[in-house]
Amino acid sequence: MLAIHNIGELVVVPPGPIGGRSMRDLTRIALAAMLLDGERIAWFGPEPQLDAPTGGESIDACGGCVIPGLIDCHTHTVFAGTREAEFVQRIEGKSYAQIAEAGGGIRVTVDAVRSATCDRLVELALPRLQRMLHNGVTTVEIKSGYGLTVEDELKMLEAVRRLKELQPVELVATYLAAHTTPREFEGRPDDYLDMVLNESLLARIRDEKLAEFCDVFCERTAFDIEQSRRVLTTAKRFGLTPRLHADQITQMSATLLAGEVGAISADHLETIDDAGIAALKAAGCVAVLLPGCSFFLSVKQAPARRLLEADLPVAVATDFNPGSAMVESLPLVMHIACTQMRLTPAEALVAATANAAAAVNRHDRLGAIKVGMQADLAILDVPNHDQWMYEPGRNCVRTVLKRGRVVASND
Amino acid sequence: MLAIHNIGELVVVPPGPIGGRSMRDLTRIALAAMLLDGERIAWFGPEPQLDAPTGGESIDACGGCVIPGLIDCHTHTVFAGTREAEFVQRIEGKSYAQIAEAGGGIRVTVDAVRSATCDRLVELALPRLQRMLHNGVTTVEIKSGYGLTVEDELKMLEAVRRLKELQPVELVATYLAAHTTPREFEGRPDDYLDMVLNESLLARIRDEKLAEFCDVFCERTAFDIEQSRRVLTTAKRFGLTPRLHADQITQMSATLLAGEVGAISADHLETIDDAGIAALKAAGCVAVLLPGCSFFLSVKQAPARRLLEADLPVAVATDFNPGSAMVESLPLVMHIACTQMRLTPAEALVAATANAAAAVNRHDRLGAIKVGMQADLAILDVPNHDQWMYEPGRNCVRTVLKRGRVVASND
Repeated sequence: MLAIHNIGELVVVPPGPIGGRSMRDLTRIALAAMLLDGERIAWFGPEPQLDAPTGGESIDACGGCVIPGLIDCHTHTVFAGTREAEFVQRIEGKSYAQIAEAGGGIRVTVDAVRSATCDRLVELALPRLQRMLHNGVTTVEIKSGYGLTVEDELKMLEAVRRLKELQPVELVATYLAAHTTPREFEGRPDDYLDMVLNESLLARIRDEKLAEFCDVFCERTAFDIEQSRRVLTTAKRFGLTPRLHADQITQMSATLLAGEVGAISADHLETIDDAGIAALKAAGCVAVLLPGCSFFLSVKQAPARRLLEADLPVAVATDFNPGSAMVESLPLVMHIACTQMRLTPAEALVAATANAAAAVNRHDRLGAIKVGMQADLAILDVPNHDQWMYEPGRNCVRTVLKRGRVVASND
Repeated sequence: MLAIHNIGELVVVPPGPIGGRSMRDLTRIALAAMLLDGERIAWFGPEPQLDAPTGGESIDACGGCVIPGLIDCHTHTVFAGTREAEFVQRIEGKSYAQIAEAGGGIRVTVDAVRSATCDRLVELALPRLQRMLHNGVTTVEIKSGYGLTVEDELKMLEAVRRLKELQPVELVATYLAAHTTPREFEGRPDDYLDMVLNESLLARIRDEKLAEFCDVFCERTAFDIEQSRRVLTTAKRFGLTPRLHADQITQMSATLLAGEVGAISADHLETIDDAGIAALKAAGCVAVLLPGCSFFLSVKQAPARRLLEADLPVAVATDFNPGSAMVESLPLVMHIACTQMRLTPAEALVAATANAAAAVNRHDRLGAIKVGMQADLAILDVPNHDQWMYEPGRNCVRTVLKRGRVVASND
């Protein structure tokens, strides 16, 4: 048994998915304690009620707040190369087309990933995951989608598999070959999909457990509804759970498709309308918002409050990627959700824990403070979680536990 | 002599003030080296031209970018208490008046500061300054203004004086008794000003070198133009250089006053209009923008690009304070300036170095890479400064030098 005592505020996040209207109703126990039995939460409550076995290990939370470990449920953390030139061009007012003409855009990253070995991709991702962990993040979803050949997509998924063994952050792999059509298939997206939806390839991804989810960028400039349907239904037959990039730039009823294919999440939603919200509600999937992306690109945020009022389970993730969101800090993105989308700190916390766990199908085990749940925890350097969200730009995480063991400390 | 070699990019920021139209024209030397002679820059140039004395000390920049140490020219870093409850209320849609009625607002901080000893104020500010230093900040301006009695304002300035001796960040003190009228003088702002502009008090501040600048919050809810004029001209007679909070919420021609009293800077400027820009240009003072404040409050940003086009020397600072900008990271605020105000990374860098130095009257010594200037430097973990601005939420600073000595390292 490991005891955590002297907790200033224990935020009792219940298991997800949690509908938007209930997301701010969190029980907070002041002066709390916890007992961990191996990987699991065995007990929690007010400290005076703690009946700790003598001689056990213990951690002094020093009056800090304790929350579930954060879950970043939408990222592109495996990549090579950086695109700061494009960042500057965008500030200077260059359009997407001008940037692409000047050699920018996603294809820069595709070229860099294709040129990199799997070892190099692993080497580049390791310090990113290490920094995420030090920000309190204990689970990260990572998508392929910068290889865009059979070999390079498999290389990205293989990099994620190796990363699982090299560091403590739990990784969730998503197959996103349908990210964009590569230049060698320009004008022939269906031929490209023939290649990346090849049955023996999908069987291999399933059999080698290289991915749990399949994603598609459903967008005017990427794949249309019909193509997206094909991607998700084909992959589903091979055991990959559907999820999709929906309504980011163009509103094209992708949320209807989400319901139709049984997607676990619909992500982005910057341009979602009332019909889309109704479709999402009917679909029963998690609405994953990416406020760091809109912030980074200086474009409109998704209508978060309308989604919450519709009682949808809302999650928040970084979308960490080198083109549209070079933001690896989930706490910073949660702060952006607070000030730019008007989520309360409680809503932002549920969005990055319980509901993010639901978006990666781990809500039976992760993202909540409940007896029997996995002891993935962050101990903060501030006495309450409101104060954490109120201080962007400062890492308020002191200690991080994964499966009941201390895996990072910022002392 | 201390050599810094293997610099991926040396950003040659010239001494300030630099007019807006020239702020993005920075010389960058690839594969550079520097020589420091004690506290000063003795030489810099392409590494192959380095003629380092044998046996001297050296620092390997590991291909990282080198920039002048950052200067945060507008902060309220000395304070007690936090106001996260108010942060949450604001997100929930409460108005300023409702928050004040619920016991929030600046008076919460005033009460906390009045209750704190000078020792306690020092103890609270030390870790903040330490974290700022680790973000590459080597000089910080700090205002009084939460005491609002003679004794408590002196206590705040005394705290700044003690902090100068306890840590390496260079501090610049500003007397801001005219921050707001305290409740015991409600309805009698002129009586309050009689007290804090008392001649023997101002003489003491001058003689004991407790402050270099005098600031006033010129705003409908604080002090009007006539009162602000009185504050700044009176203080100026005692050697305190004027600066002012202008055009934050209400456009009331404070920039005209800036010119009239010879202010070194006019700060905030969220509501500045064309006449104000012309007045500021005529006044010859630095325009200090505080994008972290508008971001934190979710309100409109100052029209930065119009100020730059008018060729005004623009600075950027955090406004770090517990009410309207709990943001201590100047690099994060510079990123916000890039994405939310459309400053290029080069403009943001000049704004937080050369022009910030001009705003605190240290441009003869600080904020630039030039032979003879003080060796306040930050060595980054990224090869160019564009990449630094492109990665918010990650501390890219590796090593910080103040007066030619290493004072912080993030290895």
